Amino acid sequence: MKIDIGNALAAEASPGISRDALDRLDDRVATCHDRIERGRDADEFGYAALNLPHTTDPDTITEAVSPLQGAEHVLVVGIGGSALGAATIAGALGDSRVHTLDNVDPEHVSRTLDALPLEDTVLNVVSRSGTTAETLANFLVVREAYEDAGVDWTDRTVVTTGESGPLRDLAETHDLPALTVPDGVPGRFSALSAVGFVPAAIRGHDIEAVLDGGRRAADLSGSLFETPAYAYGAIAYALDIRGAAVNAMMPYAEPLEPFAEWFAQLWAESLGKDGLGQLPTRALGATDQHSQLQRYRAGPANTLVTLVRPRERPNREIPATDREELAYLGGTDLGDLLDAEFDATEASLAAADRPSVRIELDRLDERAVGELLYTMEAACVLAGELYGIETFTQPAVEWGKRAARGLLGGGEFAEADAVADKAELVVE
Amino acid sequence: MKIDIGNALAAEASPGISRDALDRLDDRVATCHDRIERGRDADEFGYAALNLPHTTDPDTITEAVSPLQGAEHVLVVGIGGSALGAATIAGALGDSRVHTLDNVDPEHVSRTLDALPLEDTVLNVVSRSGTTAETLANFLVVREAYEDAGVDWTDRTVVTTGESGPLRDLAETHDLPALTVPDGVPGRFSALSAVGFVPAAIRGHDIEAVLDGGRRAADLSGSLFETPAYAYGAIAYALDIRGAAVNAMMPYAEPLEPFAEWFAQLWAESLGKDGLGQLPTRALGATDQHSQLQRYRAGPANTLVTLVRPRERPNREIPATDREELAYLGGTDLGDLLDAEFDATEASLAAADRPSVRIELDRLDERAVGELLYTMEAACVLAGELYGIETFTQPAVEWGKRAARGLLGGGEFAEADAVADKAELVVE
Repeated sequence: MKIDIGNALAAEASPGISRDALDRLDDRVATCHDRIERGRDADEFGYAALNLPHTTDPDTITEAVSPLQGAEHVLVVGIGGSALGAATIAGALGDSRVHTLDNVDPEHVSRTLDALPLEDTVLNVVSRSGTTAETLANFLVVREAYEDAGVDWTDRTVVTTGESGPLRDLAETHDLPALTVPDGVPGRFSALSAVGFVPAAIRGHDIEAVLDGGRRAADLSGSLFETPAYAYGAIAYALDIRGAAVNAMMPYAEPLEPFAEWFAQLWAESLGKDGLGQLPTRALGATDQHSQLQRYRAGPANTLVTLVRPRERPNREIPATDREELAYLGGTDLGDLLDAEFDATEASLAAADRPSVRIELDRLDERAVGELLYTMEAACVLAGELYGIETFTQPAVEWGKRAARGLLGGGEFAEADAVADKAELVVE
Repeated sequence: MKIDIGNALAAEASPGISRDALDRLDDRVATCHDRIERGRDADEFGYAALNLPHTTDPDTITEAVSPLQGAEHVLVVGIGGSALGAATIAGALGDSRVHTLDNVDPEHVSRTLDALPLEDTVLNVVSRSGTTAETLANFLVVREAYEDAGVDWTDRTVVTTGESGPLRDLAETHDLPALTVPDGVPGRFSALSAVGFVPAAIRGHDIEAVLDGGRRAADLSGSLFETPAYAYGAIAYALDIRGAAVNAMMPYAEPLEPFAEWFAQLWAESLGKDGLGQLPTRALGATDQHSQLQRYRAGPANTLVTLVRPRERPNREIPATDREELAYLGGTDLGDLLDAEFDATEASLAAADRPSVRIELDRLDERAVGELLYTMEAACVLAGELYGIETFTQPAVEWGKRAARGLLGGGEFAEADAVADKAELVVE
């Protein structure tokens, strides 16, 4: 992987960071790196995630799911970090047979279940606590759908959960394959574990190669000039505090659309606290050139655009045409067009003094996605150190969980009472 | 439709607008409204979009596509405003048989074509100029795929384009049904015309009812306290200039996910200019409570969260369970859970003094989506007047188009030369 931060330097962009300031920042990176390495050495909460390429045992996962390998579809029931890692890996590998129920929209749940051949669908239910409301509600609905279809769900369900809780008990009662969510790893940092790997393993992808990609990125040095993860984390932080409050993650590759969503969760939940943190927003090249680019280039100068692409793409030639206005397209490849758009967007931002970072992967395969996921996680951990915040907690999501539970009669919670006090100014 | 701006008032949130300031802003709204009405009366460029519910003739569209009605799938080939309106309408109506090719990713294009039964798929190619690079490249590829499959594309292609250009000529040569992109209406404001309606009409949805919904919203009064569109446009503007540089569009309904994308284009391309404009970002409830909410609630106070939901949802009961921790879920409905999450998120933002707006639709049907699209367009036009910018142009996307064309050998463009000058600082 190659990260190019040239277009985020003050000589090219505003906000941007001067070379001198970047050198000074590198001293802080060295200090943060020491902290990160201490955390890794001690397998401290959160930092343990950066050891997953070494601690995840692919054979345990492969063996557990081996009776189910070859299933045509996998349905992941999870939410947030329990769903996005698996979706990112499947997406990057071009596997459209890994489906996700990560929302409790009744219309969407019904449509998803109606469209799937349940007899050929493995269910992977993922929740560390085994009590996540959305996940368990969906699980109860999906289990009933299997029963209504006369399909034995106990023959095709894999559970990924903590050491104890309702899902662990369920697995024991029904003798289901059960994988364990690793200790000390927040959900959004768990992609390179059973949490992210079960669906890929069932579908026959090479999870050892994904881990290998992770290991490639895991050899962190103490300088941002030597470690792509640190280059990215440091530049995002440096530009944020100079005014780039928004980070637009814009892959030029449809298979990386779930990656952009995974990144948005990683960045928002890890860094959005204490009044700090860069807002991640998802975009997609070239589509969003006809949408968000206008704003990135000509709106307030508060956005860092992160452009990601694979250097190699599958071929799909554009047929020749005798229409003169379109002749230039004929005989080139869709990938060439997409790459030209990438280059054009990058140059167009630079020409307007707007910062961007370029991330290039060799190609979209198992190793690349492992490397990419690990790199962004390490970048995020570094950024958290630079901000001086608690990267691995998510206190602000708890309030709403208690309120929702109270509203549903799941106990007495003061937060639920606040709902009734809402201020109103209605226009209709 | 009901818009509740109570949680965006200064008494509840920061940034927020005081009641006094809102009253003063309403005077400006009245002036802007006069400008908008003059534009509508004269069918001026851009403003003409707000007349579409009255000027679009549904019968012309229905008649043109009538030989193709009943097709199982529709594949829209377009990009930006030529694709998002149709996708939004299909999504809101729960129609998963309207597919979109709005990117030139070779992997994605090949996968989409492989998955579709082309003999049962109507192709709708959409480009006003008939020369949009991505759209025409995809069209050439798709046409060849039909030919390779032995399916006559001329029997199942509908063109939506301007009065002249390559696509118009193509339609004439092959006697294809051709609809006209309305004059004076930028792509992102064209959802309530043939541009947005052709796929819905082919699939048998009631486009007259969509227009009827648009007409319901089109009776604009000169006060934000009487017109939902103006309430939304004014509050978004007022909060932006008070520090809410980001607008997170967060529907609590999976079928509105394409709407959030459509909104993001409308808002970014229309308002992101002259260094002004609120950055739209897409979120989805309840999924993003496990992701973006942490940042919205505890990061920098620069985000207005727009919560959208239908008041009625289809039923999908959560089966009862004897697990004590989960008993509260049993017997309720997925929709109840989703609504509890909605209320909880809204209250959770208010409890942290973070602004939000609530938009409620009766239910997700043709009328509601027409009303919603129109309301947001009128809100955007009002916001553009309040900013004092040119709402209907998108100058910043043109630079990149020329650069890309130059890179592909489609002519001499100075912009293409800038690509070679890129500054580099590579870490690998």
